[in-house]
Amino acid sequence: MHNSGKSTIPSMEQRKSQINLLNFMDQEKQRRDSKEFLFPDDNLLHKRRPSAHDHSATQSEDDESAGSFESYMVIEFDKNIKRDALHWIIDKIRMRKSDGGAQLLIRREPCQSKEKGLIIHISASKLRLLELADEIGFTKPTRNGMRNFNIGCLDDFLFDNMTMDDILTPADKQFVIKYALENIKAQADERQLPGYAAVSLYHGQSIIHAAMSEELIVNMFTLHDKEFMKRIGTEWWNLRKMFYNQPIEKIRKYFGDAIGFYFSFVGFYTSALVIPTILGILQFLFGDGETTPYFCCLYVVWMAVFLEIWKRKCSAMAYKWGTLSLATIELPRPDYYGKLGRDPITGKLTPQYPQWKTMTQVYLISVPVILLCIGGAAFMTISQFWFEDYLIEKFGYESYITMIPSIFQSIFVAILTVFYDRFATFLTVKENHRTQNQYERHRVNKLIVLEFVNNFFCLFYIAFVKRDMKMLQNQLMTQMLILQFVQNAQEFLLPKLKQKYVLWFCCDGGIFNKHNDDNEIDTKRLTEVYDDLNIQQLDDDDPRIKQNIRESAKDEYNTYDDYLELYIQFGYVVLFSSVAPFAAFWALFNNFFEIRLDAYKLCKTFRRPFARRAKNTGAWQLAFEVLACLSIMSNCGILYLSPQVREITEGMSTELKVIIIVALEHFLLLLAWIIHKGIPDRPSWVRIALARNDYESKQALKRESVQRTKNIIFRRFKSFHPK
Amino acid sequence: MHNSGKSTIPSMEQRKSQINLLNFMDQEKQRRDSKEFLFPDDNLLHKRRPSAHDHSATQSEDDESAGSFESYMVIEFDKNIKRDALHWIIDKIRMRKSDGGAQLLIRREPCQSKEKGLIIHISASKLRLLELADEIGFTKPTRNGMRNFNIGCLDDFLFDNMTMDDILTPADKQFVIKYALENIKAQADERQLPGYAAVSLYHGQSIIHAAMSEELIVNMFTLHDKEFMKRIGTEWWNLRKMFYNQPIEKIRKYFGDAIGFYFSFVGFYTSALVIPTILGILQFLFGDGETTPYFCCLYVVWMAVFLEIWKRKCSAMAYKWGTLSLATIELPRPDYYGKLGRDPITGKLTPQYPQWKTMTQVYLISVPVILLCIGGAAFMTISQFWFEDYLIEKFGYESYITMIPSIFQSIFVAILTVFYDRFATFLTVKENHRTQNQYERHRVNKLIVLEFVNNFFCLFYIAFVKRDMKMLQNQLMTQMLILQFVQNAQEFLLPKLKQKYVLWFCCDGGIFNKHNDDNEIDTKRLTEVYDDLNIQQLDDDDPRIKQNIRESAKDEYNTYDDYLELYIQFGYVVLFSSVAPFAAFWALFNNFFEIRLDAYKLCKTFRRPFARRAKNTGAWQLAFEVLACLSIMSNCGILYLSPQVREITEGMSTELKVIIIVALEHFLLLLAWIIHKGIPDRPSWVRIALARNDYESKQALKRESVQRTKNIIFRRFKSFHPK
Repeated sequence: MHNSGKSTIPSMEQRKSQINLLNFMDQEKQRRDSKEFLFPDDNLLHKRRPSAHDHSATQSEDDESAGSFESYMVIEFDKNIKRDALHWIIDKIRMRKSDGGAQLLIRREPCQSKEKGLIIHISASKLRLLELADEIGFTKPTRNGMRNFNIGCLDDFLFDNMTMDDILTPADKQFVIKYALENIKAQADERQLPGYAAVSLYHGQSIIHAAMSEELIVNMFTLHDKEFMKRIGTEWWNLRKMFYNQPIEKIRKYFGDAIGFYFSFVGFYTSALVIPTILGILQFLFGDGETTPYFCCLYVVWMAVFLEIWKRKCSAMAYKWGTLSLATIELPRPDYYGKLGRDPITGKLTPQYPQWKTMTQVYLISVPVILLCIGGAAFMTISQFWFEDYLIEKFGYESYITMIPSIFQSIFVAILTVFYDRFATFLTVKENHRTQNQYERHRVNKLIVLEFVNNFFCLFYIAFVKRDMKMLQNQLMTQMLILQFVQNAQEFLLPKLKQKYVLWFCCDGGIFNKHNDDNEIDTKRLTEVYDDLNIQQLDDDDPRIKQNIRESAKDEYNTYDDYLELYIQFGYVVLFSSVAPFAAFWALFNNFFEIRLDAYKLCKTFRRPFARRAKNTGAWQLAFEVLACLSIMSNCGILYLSPQVREITEGMSTELKVIIIVALEHFLLLLAWIIHKGIPDRPSWVRIALARNDYESKQALKRESVQRTKNIIFRRFKSFHPK
Repeated sequence: MHNSGKSTIPSMEQRKSQINLLNFMDQEKQRRDSKEFLFPDDNLLHKRRPSAHDHSATQSEDDESAGSFESYMVIEFDKNIKRDALHWIIDKIRMRKSDGGAQLLIRREPCQSKEKGLIIHISASKLRLLELADEIGFTKPTRNGMRNFNIGCLDDFLFDNMTMDDILTPADKQFVIKYALENIKAQADERQLPGYAAVSLYHGQSIIHAAMSEELIVNMFTLHDKEFMKRIGTEWWNLRKMFYNQPIEKIRKYFGDAIGFYFSFVGFYTSALVIPTILGILQFLFGDGETTPYFCCLYVVWMAVFLEIWKRKCSAMAYKWGTLSLATIELPRPDYYGKLGRDPITGKLTPQYPQWKTMTQVYLISVPVILLCIGGAAFMTISQFWFEDYLIEKFGYESYITMIPSIFQSIFVAILTVFYDRFATFLTVKENHRTQNQYERHRVNKLIVLEFVNNFFCLFYIAFVKRDMKMLQNQLMTQMLILQFVQNAQEFLLPKLKQKYVLWFCCDGGIFNKHNDDNEIDTKRLTEVYDDLNIQQLDDDDPRIKQNIRESAKDEYNTYDDYLELYIQFGYVVLFSSVAPFAAFWALFNNFFEIRLDAYKLCKTFRRPFARRAKNTGAWQLAFEVLACLSIMSNCGILYLSPQVREITEGMSTELKVIIIVALEHFLLLLAWIIHKGIPDRPSWVRIALARNDYESKQALKRESVQRTKNIIFRRFKSFHPK
């Protein structure tokens, strides 16, 4: 298949005509099935019974492409998986689409340890990748703007010397393969997993999901593309390129939209920080009580404009990346459970969990529990202050003993952060959301609230209860610097250490070398077992085997931690900007390095993440907006308490003073709202492009409908007047 | 055409098969063009040259349907219109679609007065109406949910004994005819209006719009359907049906979506008023200073929930009415001007007016001018209070002279209201918005702001500057009752009187009878001129001629005035609910009659309005939301000033008091925001139905794409192996 492909594809690239695709299909067919010489591909036209012959045919295709086998996904099975189940799943992966398989190509790694189960690498032919992209409904650029990808109009998507390989980005390919795997669905007559009578399946259930939740598949991930890493590295986290823009386009092509959005956001946020940095310096140099309200206004305008412009940038990028009108009917999460019932949208049998139960869980359990946690954390913070006051009273100001509560509190916060993460996951799992996106959003929302209290409650307490501006300033800057230092160290060093350890453990020293003889016997036995499967093996010296060992030990990356870091930093910058004018400067300074550190970390210390399609920064946009809104209130509060303002308003009645501040606050909220509403969420060129697409598709539909009417009339006429 | 139609349509209703439609088409063709016996309609298949024969053919169709000519639109030309232009426009209206005409049917009224120009009635064949509906892209119900109307799949839209006539509502038919008329566009070679060398046209300009802005067409409207009026009257504004629901479905079928939404909103709002009425009574009976904050909370919850539920109801109705995904590329307004340029969306030549110019006009002229108006009105109100105080000082409390400023102010407000209306129109015309919708929105927004100041500034002044709660209560109730009384009288009596006068003027007494002889000679001459046009005349005793005279004298209806009335009333109810607990009761009482009065007025004293398609209440939703938001602030302010609350908080410091109130206000704002975000804008069944539609159309697209690929391959195979 690939041999013939090789000879055909170059000519395709040159002539780029639809006929070529068909040529390609025909020739492929000729080669594969020489008895049915030049007959149309029955795989496309008719459904064919599955047969043993089919498997070997797929296998033989597989064989011939040995040289150029690209590994798009690695699956590691449990070492104790039953033989029947293993065979069944593997067959499902490589079977023809018409037989309910994913029609993907498979290679297995040579058996090296009895501690590891079967490891397979998955690939697909170029045509199959495009077919899947069509099925998913990607939106891809054409010469005339973005269009829904359609394999029937392949030529439209090939321009400027593009080849068939360039249509899908590396991230797309990974996404497509994952989609194909997850969409292998149980047939109506497959009621349980072979070999596991207890694991019942329903018609249309994702088999891979089922195997994953039964832990028969213990690992599924993608290997890094080392070539790409090297190329992107020089542009991205090379120190000499510090002042250059990040190669966002390349990043999103490799890591997918969600990570593309993250790095684009950090970059944009960091450059936006220049303005509050300048404002902070000006405020430090020339500011006094009288000018503070003006600075407040400027900060608010900056925040509101920054968040709105980011929204615009987001939609512009989403348009260019083809995800703006993203609305796929998602598969349920692997862990989603419920009674089997007809889906109201697709009419298919899927597990149905009543919405009201989820809502009840959210509002009657999660919300009160989270509120309780907040209360607990707040109480701990307050009691720390009491304890501190008590110690100061007892031992005097200078004693080191008075530092105990702070240390205690820091440890407590660190423990809480870990606890919160698990706790939020636990609560959200209980809520049983149907899709991964809903699940993520609810989880992130919980964590945002908890982390807010964790990080900022103590500042609010100092500001508005203790009313000690000096202390607030110190606490804020200390917390901010420590957090940034600790987090950078943690996210950089910890995975590095862990990786070193695992490498030593698995390859160089470690258990395998200890029981070397036992291991050799076992692996031989296993190799025999796996040989039954009739999967071609990778070469023993294939670099991907070692790469796999190294990368499977790495952690999975999640943008959550990085967003959270930015979120807390943004809080430090904006919540008390009137007392800490230098916070923006520190944030700017930190982010400047943080971007490169994150980049390095992502490329070097984590597994290659699964590409996620996204059209914006999701829950985080709202989180930042809420923070911006709170910052207006907190800054007005600070303003009211600040000694300079108190001096100026000396002669006024308290009532008038408060009313002035409240009026200022309402004015700033209104200002933020006007900016929020006044700046359209989408740049006009995006709106025009969308409207044009819409217009053109409607025109096409109209033309088609006219054509259909004509055809009907014409056919009718012919039936009246047969020749 | 209609004769044959009559014999075919009943069988269609019974068998409802697509073949029938084609039968119908075929037979129609047979009848019309006997020489081309049983050949397919070349009008559908080929473009045909325009010819004199064509006109007479259309004319003859017209002749035969004389008995059942339904007048969907009346057009009155200027009496001095040049002959060439008149002929040209009339030909455009009746010419075949393939020749650039609207393919509509025409009758003219007999000439009765030299004061009036030619009056024509416009109709269309049933098939033409459906064709136009397809072109516009209506969404209509089928057995399986809402679908884009497609004349090729007519059967899908006929269920439950529906006939072809039932697919389009009366409002749809009017809309369709208006669309057809407005979409008669100038061809590339038609650079000016015949007879008017000064009136240049551009390719694709709406000819009717051009004639209207040159005032060659002086009137275009639709006659009422008297049968329908009678039927709806018994259900709607009959006094015995006061306690029944309004027949919303019938209303929107006849008057269109926008008016349907208005009456649905009044109805819903009125029933929602029951809750604040009960709250008000409870507050009056059991309320004291301590309970007021709780009542405030309840009012806020009521407001927020009411507005959110209305949004849900809106989207449910919009879904049922097929306007939820309404996004038509609108024609520019008749008065829109600009340089000719390519439209970025459609690629056609249309006038282009740079967006930045409109924005500059809005922000640099309209906004400052409106702010100035607000300042002026505010100053007038304040000076009225000063004047009053001065008079009281001079003449004592009891003197009637102290009433002078109030009277003066009332007159001033009345004058302002008229002035504002014209002024807002003037400003908005200057802004030169492209579409009617944008124009309306900007105009309404201006008026909302101006009317807000006009009606409520004085109350705010009394509440927060004079701080006289007794006076506030009196002023509020007086203003509210007077406004409701005056407005009801005005909107009921004024049009009645005007109508009486016009009827007398035109028909019974009036100018025509004075110069009777002159008139007769002139009309004879005119009749001769119009006979050239070769349009069939209506019978001299056709009731529609008299109906036309009567209705053309009526005013055009605009939902604006009615919405404004509700808006101001809502303001009185919510802005100071803590001091005026009975406002809700009065509003409920008033609206109960208001609904029937509005209905009666709409049916009896106005022209039949043009049906407007809408998916919600537009600018008014936001206006009500802003009012709700303001009411939270004003009520908290009132709370702070109220003597009961002052008593309770006796011992507290002023600072603490203010902070408590501000905290309450923020809590209420947060509560409103949570309700706003927490209640989804669309009921779940609508979301499911939309998702299902989307899913099904995607599935259909996919199937079609597979079919296309198959066809291509099959054709290719055939070309390799010819039989």
